[in-house]
Amino acid sequence: MWERATITLRPRPRGVHLVTREVVEALPALARVRVGLLHLFIRHTSASLALNENASPEVRADLEAWMSSAVPDGWPGFRHTLEGPDDMPAHVKAVIVGESLTLPVGDGRLELGTWQGVHLLEHRDDGGPRTLTATLWGEPLR
Amino acid sequence: MWERATITLRPRPRGVHLVTREVVEALPALARVRVGLLHLFIRHTSASLALNENASPEVRADLEAWMSSAVPDGWPGFRHTLEGPDDMPAHVKAVIVGESLTLPVGDGRLELGTWQGVHLLEHRDDGGPRTLTATLWGEPLR
Amino acid sequence: MWERATITLRPRPRGVHLVTREVVEALPALARVRVGLLHLFIRHTSASLALNENASPEVRADLEAWMSSAVPDGWPGFRHTLEGPDDMPAHVKAVIVGESLTLPVGDGRLELGTWQGVHLLEHRDDGGPRTLTATLWGEPLR
Repeated sequence: MWERATITLRPRPRGVHLVTREVVEALPALARVRVGLLHLFIRHTSASLALNENASPEVRADLEAWMSSAVPDGWPGFRHTLEGPDDMPAHVKAVIVGESLTLPVGDGRLELGTWQGVHLLEHRDDGGPRTLTATLWGEPLR
Repeated sequence: MWERATITLRPRPRGVHLVTREVVEALPALARVRVGLLHLFIRHTSASLALNENASPEVRADLEAWMSSAVPDGWPGFRHTLEGPDDMPAHVKAVIVGESLTLPVGDGRLELGTWQGVHLLEHRDDGGPRTLTATLWGEPLR
Repeated sequence: MWERATITLRPRPRGVHLVTREVVEALPALARVRVGLLHLFIRHTSASLALNENASPEVRADLEAWMSSAVPDGWPGFRHTLEGPDDMPAHVKAVIVGESLTLPVGDGRLELGTWQGVHLLEHRDDGGPRTLTATLWGEPLR
């Protein structure tokens, strides 16, 4: 079986946002998979998808703090500054974090570890809504 | 064909560990795939999987040295310090390295480049055993 | 359907190179996929594949500038220096950027976002030609 869906995530501020529930609720077909995989793909170059600890808001804030310290706004080596000081850092962060996740699905549900959650990393101050292409494939439950 | 297996890697100290052989030996079904893919997924947020050079222990030590310098224990920007000085850096490293690998399989074996090996990056000092979910799918050999 | 192809990218200097067209032209089977995925895998540990903004050469130059500043040639923590000052940084960059991309395919073409392009990140000064293993699978158009 193959299922494809488009998921639009509402605009969020720069930072790390837990979106597991939002993604799962948009994919009722998960319930029909015996064994398979889910591919989540963000169609942008200034935001990322990543797994991270799903419990503590502090972990999310700390991850954002480190990212924006490692790739600071207004880094003097950047020449592409036309679209604002948060644009080029967003492209760099998007490359080092990555634009997609491939996740195990089994017996009708996403099979993450206990502490793993799907996160949107919004790298821009005002990135607007973000579009995901979700692809689910595998063997169906009978 | 779809095959799913759980692989438990024994506890290892913080650092970069070559595990290609361990993974392949846990997956006898590789031998039955004509063309397909293997997805390896680590069910944790403080350890990673990555391909890296499989020959030199120095390369592994140098990778660990850079990682722990880029995301140092006790970085002053971290507030989530309750679980120890190596906890929050481990979450950051897990996000920038990644939790999964998708690898080509052909004619019954893993098709890596000559110098590529599968590595566990253990980001914690005492991370304990690590569990992988392995998913193998493709066209079987006849 | 399953298709596998080997794509050889010509030698390029250190830096970020847009290769979307080259990859698509090497994969005529894309036109036969109704819904599926394309996996691109680089068989090396000193070069990477990444999506990034496909419009501005400045973005590519800035990404290279940041990468080579974050993981500098001759970083004093590196002991593996036998293969030259650009070798160990290349391995580190390859781990943090990643060796593969999984991309949505639909209605006979690659379904990237408007600004997304496939890039080769050549981390070595003189890396030579680079070999990709491309795997395309999904449901065929009828």
